Amino acid sequence: MSVLVVGSVALDTTKTPFGKCKNVLGGSATYFSVSASFFSPVNIVAVVGEDFPKEHIRLLKKKGINTEGLQVKKGKTFRWEGEYGFDFNNAKTLATHLNLFAEFDPTIPAKYKRCKYLFLANIDPEIQQHVLKQVSRPALVASDTMNYWIENKPKQLIRLLEKIDLFLLNEAEARQLTGEANLAKAARSIINMGTKRVIIKRGEHGSLLFSLNSIFSVPAFLLESIVDPTGAGDTFAGGVIGYLAQCKNITEANLRKAIVMGSVMATFTIEDFSLRRLVKIKKPNINERFSQFKKQVRF
Amino acid sequence: MSVLVVGSVALDTTKTPFGKCKNVLGGSATYFSVSASFFSPVNIVAVVGEDFPKEHIRLLKKKGINTEGLQVKKGKTFRWEGEYGFDFNNAKTLATHLNLFAEFDPTIPAKYKRCKYLFLANIDPEIQQHVLKQVSRPALVASDTMNYWIENKPKQLIRLLEKIDLFLLNEAEARQLTGEANLAKAARSIINMGTKRVIIKRGEHGSLLFSLNSIFSVPAFLLESIVDPTGAGDTFAGGVIGYLAQCKNITEANLRKAIVMGSVMATFTIEDFSLRRLVKIKKPNINERFSQFKKQVRF
Repeated sequence: MSVLVVGSVALDTTKTPFGKCKNVLGGSATYFSVSASFFSPVNIVAVVGEDFPKEHIRLLKKKGINTEGLQVKKGKTFRWEGEYGFDFNNAKTLATHLNLFAEFDPTIPAKYKRCKYLFLANIDPEIQQHVLKQVSRPALVASDTMNYWIENKPKQLIRLLEKIDLFLLNEAEARQLTGEANLAKAARSIINMGTKRVIIKRGEHGSLLFSLNSIFSVPAFLLESIVDPTGAGDTFAGGVIGYLAQCKNITEANLRKAIVMGSVMATFTIEDFSLRRLVKIKKPNINERFSQFKKQVRF
Repeated sequence: MSVLVVGSVALDTTKTPFGKCKNVLGGSATYFSVSASFFSPVNIVAVVGEDFPKEHIRLLKKKGINTEGLQVKKGKTFRWEGEYGFDFNNAKTLATHLNLFAEFDPTIPAKYKRCKYLFLANIDPEIQQHVLKQVSRPALVASDTMNYWIENKPKQLIRLLEKIDLFLLNEAEARQLTGEANLAKAARSIINMGTKRVIIKRGEHGSLLFSLNSIFSVPAFLLESIVDPTGAGDTFAGGVIGYLAQCKNITEANLRKAIVMGSVMATFTIEDFSLRRLVKIKKPNINERFSQFKKQVRF
């Protein structure tokens, strides 16, 4: 089944202990859609400016991603600049130029409106609501967020959660949103806000899936070479939702396998800057790493 | 098969966001031996002073631990005072009174010398060497360490590693010992120093087992109630070695299950101060939590 993602397509400048890169392809919807495209057809809704290199759009198309909803407008593309130290779990934002993304008003093309799997990437929760109003109820609505929205639009975010089946956020955000240091308690509190399930992303420490009556905990795949973690969370989400859409039904077992698949996909992103590694891999690379992952965790 | 542990028996004063306790039973050998005693017969070698409450020795005996090697000397017992904030992975040491432990000269009783499973808890690597010289080669020698020895006796520690089958340390210590930020690389470097296998303890993020050709990664069991993490690492080690001694042979599969068992044991320690919870549990509590753990991680 097909997946719809609404989020950002950006040009990133990042610096890590292993190098730097300037104005490279980035954005939540970009990482998500390329990752999900390995499992299911993907439709992307985002906005870029006239400065956005055509080759990037060609790349998305080559990956089979439907770019009909990718608006190209007069003005400049969203640009983000960040830096990481050896602690890859925390990015230091050096500059954010929202540009055209500041007035992003996502219009869902008619033929996307019946998409069964919807991912609302990290954007203003009011815009996420606005997207939800344009679509027929999907089988699964997943959404991401960030500290900025928790701080500035907590009510709107909590109102959104009632309509969300699967909410993704990182551990610091989970603590910030709930005021709970303990992650099990924080997750319960988020589920009480209305979402059916919550995934807490822990970067190099793996991830946690909470439902009302169950917890799934999985470590991250151990990598020797980490170059740039930018996009890892969205690549993870793309693997999770893309794989679920491929499974067609949302059972606990499928969700768990989807999370492992998401973790596997994220490892490719962090092995190089931008989407350089992610766009090069083939299905056998994914299957091989999935097998390695299983070997690493089975007992 | 029986287990021999050489380490500290102490009186701890700890403070956490959830309360405090003064001069309670603690020490690496104490946590280790009570934890291991659920799986195998345990012999303890340590030193305490005349101030050490007799009830604690009675408690160890009640747990079936052989205390023949527990020297009671004139003077004071080792005392440690520490504090934890919400980040339970880092203890802040407020005071360390080594007292009699400063001149600890472990003498292994004759009937312990053929113990097949030896755990050298966190003490001076020269004393660890001295213990090794007193015993017939056990089937498994495991040892722990701490940042103090890495900083002050690195050569002696590395010399010891050649005689160690299973070396345990936490992630900060692994990075400190090797100068490697990446844990997979750090582990390889430690194996190159001479130990056959290394376990990197990550507190609430689980643990990693490295052999020359394999990696096992396991998350920690997610607890809602954490009271005091003091002793968690030694309780973990007690579960690992005690379970291995029960298995009788050291295969990769047994090691993996032993690490999960160690993680399970550690959860009981952190649920209360000192060994309060650990001494109260029964075998069915362990088996039940082991099953819950499996449910939390299977996919």
